[in-house]
Amino acid sequence: MKILLVGASGTLGRAIAQTLSHHEVLAASRNSAQFPVDITDDASVSALLRKTGKVDAIVSAAGVLHFGPLPEMSPAQFSIGLNDKLLGQVRLALLGQHALNDGGSITLTTGIVADEPIRAGANASAVNRALEGFVQGAAFELQRGLRINAVSPSVLTESWADYGPFFPGFEPVTAARAALAYQRSVEGVQSGRVYRVW
Amino acid sequence: MKILLVGASGTLGRAIAQTLSHHEVLAASRNSAQFPVDITDDASVSALLRKTGKVDAIVSAAGVLHFGPLPEMSPAQFSIGLNDKLLGQVRLALLGQHALNDGGSITLTTGIVADEPIRAGANASAVNRALEGFVQGAAFELQRGLRINAVSPSVLTESWADYGPFFPGFEPVTAARAALAYQRSVEGVQSGRVYRVW
Ligand SMILES: NC(=O)c1ccc[n+]([C@@H]2O[C@H](COP(=O)([O-])OP(=O)(O)OC[C@H]3O[C@@H](n4cnc5c(N)ncnc54)[C@H](OP(=O)(O)O)[C@@H]3O)[C@@H](O)[C@H]2O)c1
Ligand SMILES: NC(=O)c1ccc[n+]([C@@H]2O[C@H](COP(=O)([O-])OP(=O)(O)OC[C@H]3O[C@@H](n4cnc5c(N)ncnc54)[C@H](OP(=O)(O)O)[C@@H]3O)[C@@H](O)[C@H]2O)c1
Repeated sequence: MKILLVGASGTLGRAIAQTLSHHEVLAASRNSAQFPVDITDDASVSALLRKTGKVDAIVSAAGVLHFGPLPEMSPAQFSIGLNDKLLGQVRLALLGQHALNDGGSITLTTGIVADEPIRAGANASAVNRALEGFVQGAAFELQRGLRINAVSPSVLTESWADYGPFFPGFEPVTAARAALAYQRSVEGVQSGRVYRVW
Repeated sequence: MKILLVGASGTLGRAIAQTLSHHEVLAASRNSAQFPVDITDDASVSALLRKTGKVDAIVSAAGVLHFGPLPEMSPAQFSIGLNDKLLGQVRLALLGQHALNDGGSITLTTGIVADEPIRAGANASAVNRALEGFVQGAAFELQRGLRINAVSPSVLTESWADYGPFFPGFEPVTAARAALAYQRSVEGVQSGRVYRVW
């Protein structure tokens, strides 16, 4: 398969690229030399899709959230996650559906805070739930046998030093284990699924 | 109690005002003469909260979504729901938490499409789920005994002529029945709840 992987240079993205390396993986991100893209920008995503041509799968492992205490959170801070992780990935799906070959798939990234609220995590809970709602709603409307799923990893072992303090008592998962769920989504048959990895 | 009700002139809002009429209800909406507010605008919400002074409850029955088929949906259309029903209500909660008396409550409105995807409803599924994630995450971080809940009504009987065709086989509920859930949220003890009315 020809697979467009956005966020390929990240902690999670590198593991996904490795797990899918038996396919042709087009590795995209803002700083990619060959496939530069900013998912917060329509024109940038459209330009990327013109460059890749038709693909069999689109995988996203990108997206920024706002973490911060609720009593100090401003609407502008809350909208960081809306515009980046949420609308950025939805943009990739909405524009990307037309760049997929029949039977192709879209796989987006949510995260455990959708199900398990944490301190400073109200934006993450909202954005991750929204992505899961989008995936479950969109699955029934995609045409030509296209599929869409989300992967919701726990904190990654590789990110534990950075995020661990926000996740007391949580069990981290390796990026390699999370990456398997992307393979299930891309090579499997399901649609409208949230693959929880924890 | 002194209750700020945003969207008070709407189909749902009128029923909520009726059900809560044993309280002092401040009826707000864009076209309200006494309490005008646009929830998509920080300055407008702040001005409203200065005008109301401290309140015991904030209830929102406002918020616009985008309905339309996924194959034609643009990122700009998807962001209608993000900026209006989602961020608008979150803005009311974030700014409003500081205008509540100790032990006060916030009640937001989601909808059945969070749980039951419908045709043309991907934006509604995403936005409604996000609101539920926000409420469930925020509940644990509110200070001073503040509470936050969401009410998720099915299609209203009063709106059936407009929305019924999108909801084949769904059972509508009267606005008066949905309004009871707002009373449970405002006068009850729970927090982080989604009251499903269907
Ligand atoms: N790390 C965790 O513990 C964890 C756990 C659960 C869920 N997640 C989720 O997994 C996703 C990736 O996390 P990560 O830790 O792997 O992040 P990361 O290491 O910071 O990597 C982010 C990747 O996305 C790219 N990127 C960032 N902004 C972009 C944009 N606007 N357009 C296109 N590409 C962009 C980055 O490359 P450039 O800088 O070149 O653009 C990079 O390739 C996030 O959605 C995160 O919420 C992470
Ligand atoms: N109707 C249903 O069947 C149904 C079912 C489930 C959920 N819901 C949800 O319930 C909520 C209300 O629905 P509805 O049918 O009652 O809507 P509606 O009849 O159109 O009423 C909307 C109310 O919100 C006010 N409003 C609109 N935009 C506003 C803004 N930017 N700032 C402040 N106020 C604003 C309107 O007054 P102004 O025009 O004066 O601002 C009006 O009072 C929506 O979130 C909807 O998704 C509705």
